[in-house]
Amino acid sequence: MYDVIMKKRNGFSLTEEEIRFFVQGYTKGEIPDYQVSALMMAIYFQGMSKEETLTLTMEMAKSGDMLDLSEIKGIKVDKHSTGGVGDKTSLALTPMVAACSISVAKMSGRGLGHTGGTIDKLESFTGFTTGISRETFIKNVNEIGIAIMGQTADLAPADKKLYALRDVTATVDQMSLIASSIMSKKLAAGADAIVLDVKTGSGAFMKTLEDSIALAKEMVDIGNGAGRNTIAVVSDMDQPLGYAVGNSLEVIEAIETLKGNGPADFTELVMELGSQMLIAGEKANSKEEAKKLLQDTIENGTALDKFAEFVKAQGGDERAVYDTTLLPKASVIREIKSDEEGYIHKIQCDEIGICSLILGGGRETKESEIDLSVGFVLTKKIGDYVKQGDTLAIMHANDTAKADTAEKRFKAAYTIANDPVQKPGMIKTVIA
Amino acid sequence: MYDVIMKKRNGFSLTEEEIRFFVQGYTKGEIPDYQVSALMMAIYFQGMSKEETLTLTMEMAKSGDMLDLSEIKGIKVDKHSTGGVGDKTSLALTPMVAACSISVAKMSGRGLGHTGGTIDKLESFTGFTTGISRETFIKNVNEIGIAIMGQTADLAPADKKLYALRDVTATVDQMSLIASSIMSKKLAAGADAIVLDVKTGSGAFMKTLEDSIALAKEMVDIGNGAGRNTIAVVSDMDQPLGYAVGNSLEVIEAIETLKGNGPADFTELVMELGSQMLIAGEKANSKEEAKKLLQDTIENGTALDKFAEFVKAQGGDERAVYDTTLLPKASVIREIKSDEEGYIHKIQCDEIGICSLILGGGRETKESEIDLSVGFVLTKKIGDYVKQGDTLAIMHANDTAKADTAEKRFKAAYTIANDPVQKPGMIKTVIA
Repeated sequence: MYDVIMKKRNGFSLTEEEIRFFVQGYTKGEIPDYQVSALMMAIYFQGMSKEETLTLTMEMAKSGDMLDLSEIKGIKVDKHSTGGVGDKTSLALTPMVAACSISVAKMSGRGLGHTGGTIDKLESFTGFTTGISRETFIKNVNEIGIAIMGQTADLAPADKKLYALRDVTATVDQMSLIASSIMSKKLAAGADAIVLDVKTGSGAFMKTLEDSIALAKEMVDIGNGAGRNTIAVVSDMDQPLGYAVGNSLEVIEAIETLKGNGPADFTELVMELGSQMLIAGEKANSKEEAKKLLQDTIENGTALDKFAEFVKAQGGDERAVYDTTLLPKASVIREIKSDEEGYIHKIQCDEIGICSLILGGGRETKESEIDLSVGFVLTKKIGDYVKQGDTLAIMHANDTAKADTAEKRFKAAYTIANDPVQKPGMIKTVIA
Repeated sequence: MYDVIMKKRNGFSLTEEEIRFFVQGYTKGEIPDYQVSALMMAIYFQGMSKEETLTLTMEMAKSGDMLDLSEIKGIKVDKHSTGGVGDKTSLALTPMVAACSISVAKMSGRGLGHTGGTIDKLESFTGFTTGISRETFIKNVNEIGIAIMGQTADLAPADKKLYALRDVTATVDQMSLIASSIMSKKLAAGADAIVLDVKTGSGAFMKTLEDSIALAKEMVDIGNGAGRNTIAVVSDMDQPLGYAVGNSLEVIEAIETLKGNGPADFTELVMELGSQMLIAGEKANSKEEAKKLLQDTIENGTALDKFAEFVKAQGGDERAVYDTTLLPKASVIREIKSDEEGYIHKIQCDEIGICSLILGGGRETKESEIDLSVGFVLTKKIGDYVKQGDTLAIMHANDTAKADTAEKRFKAAYTIANDPVQKPGMIKTVIA
């Protein structure tokens, strides 16, 4: 291991054998943390070549179970988002593509962060559970087109161990390590094709477009290098996605989108990702054709019905899909008003996420319980003009003290100035 | 600790508080190895400022006992060598400076390496021991001017722990870390002034003159920064020092030097270091005056007598100082002859050290027992002309098989070619 650290420290590329040696040795506990953290820091400074990154990813993927989805018919297309504020994309996207006969077989974990993960959001439906058997999971995917299972399999344990170490040794933010961490789990999860939603901006892990594109490229290279058709869409996260931030509030916005009433930016993103999934799944030959098919699922109601069918199949009260007043509701509804007049130049996106966390909408620790009802519905976004006293957002809360704190911080996240400013584009680029 | 790693990783200087925090925390076992190794690797890439290096050194020095030498009269001058092959400098130097009334109070450990450390070499005198009490130690220094004690105090435990970690994480060879490791022990050892012998070349830790000078400067800055008058002599180690390599063989060479019959290069080095010590100890005002004083100790026999007095005071058979045939002798004496004709261009110095180790003259592990009698006495050095069959060195061994292996490797360490070549200078530069 000493030689491996030294070699990387001195700027040389590690061989497949050397990478396998350290990944396997570390996973088995034969190589100590202190040598691996030194190697991670050396990688932080010296980087990794495409070949090294692919090898590292494959070795981490192979460190645990590699899911076999062959019992599921057709091309399995997975979708992954690097995460952001108000990201309810999967909720709207999966019913639409499933309605176009793309199979969505997801194994999800619960996230830490501003709002819950997809599973938490789905738990807004009374009775909804991801604790289904493997048999039910496969059967549901084949019959309905969608199933989500809690992460039961031992996916990429090497990544889990390595990430925990990087997290405490300031070696997280290295492009190749980030890319290999994400992709190792995706490769282990068994899909044939992978559509990545790489976020960019103040609410994303990658703050600059340049970094986001670099990460997207690294991941696409890994995916394609591993024989999975991989496409990355780089999309805006410089302000919350859509208007809703918070679990049941986001479910409502996703349902509205399935009915054709979604926010323009969010609908644009869903259409773009959906098109890529349809093309990857060989259900469409062009983006135009794909978009037409997706649009049809909204207009003829099949997407909404598919969503209800999926919720029901996993124990949820599907009536709430058609009557969102049945979803969790907060007791304190308050308008947040602007103190200034002018054009909104900036919304510090991660701050909005923290405001949602303050209200109880996210998890600070693994043990935290999420309040599904709280959050915000924005009424103004970047480029909009506001007068003093105009409503910036509606806050949903269950605790007045928390609401006060969140409101103050929420307002401070907005930058308002006199000169007009353009609305940011949603889709920055697509990398295939 | 995470923030400290991140800060250094991003190229910022650590504050005194941050350095103290990690040195104390690590020494107490409150900060884990894996965070410290990541920090060491970040320091490898980002370096440390003069202030950071001084702070680190002081904190490591203060992590254990700080020796109080105030019971010893006069200015205490310590000498430290970065180590090399055939380095018997202390054996000749200390009696000479002690004969000029400089107090030498050394606390030494036993080294791992090609030949033994100073203590091992001194054990060539039957009965010699460093297991003396603190009282005897102080008394001997005050009365004779020299005493050497085995390392009983807990000197710079932080350095010990940090060095062990760096040794297995490829973070040893960083200039500021090397300098602070050496200097932390020197500062803890309590001398008022420190004369450093920084070796350069194929038998030294620093192979290039540039690196050796950089290390010398770092150490001088630390020493002076800590209020100890510090001078570094950068000297040649591109070939063995003097002619003798091996414990009792080196003792003999040191004794010959005290009698005025030493090799020119070795004598030059002893004179240079001795002058610096005399000036630092305020026994001379100029190098010329100092050299004259040292030369006198050879000519009037006081240096040799001082050495005998010291050996006797620590239980050794001082008769061997005047009759070196009483020192350990090897059973197999063999001439190593040149296979080629021409000028000696290069002697791969560390290889000569390994040959001594092969014969049993050094320690491979802490438990190894040293054969004090074995080694080499070179007859030809760089710049000398040899004919085929001329003797390159006399090998002293106790095992024919080992002698065969060592002889082959010894010859291979020499590069002989047709064109003449200059003898390398001994003193490269002095940094104060």
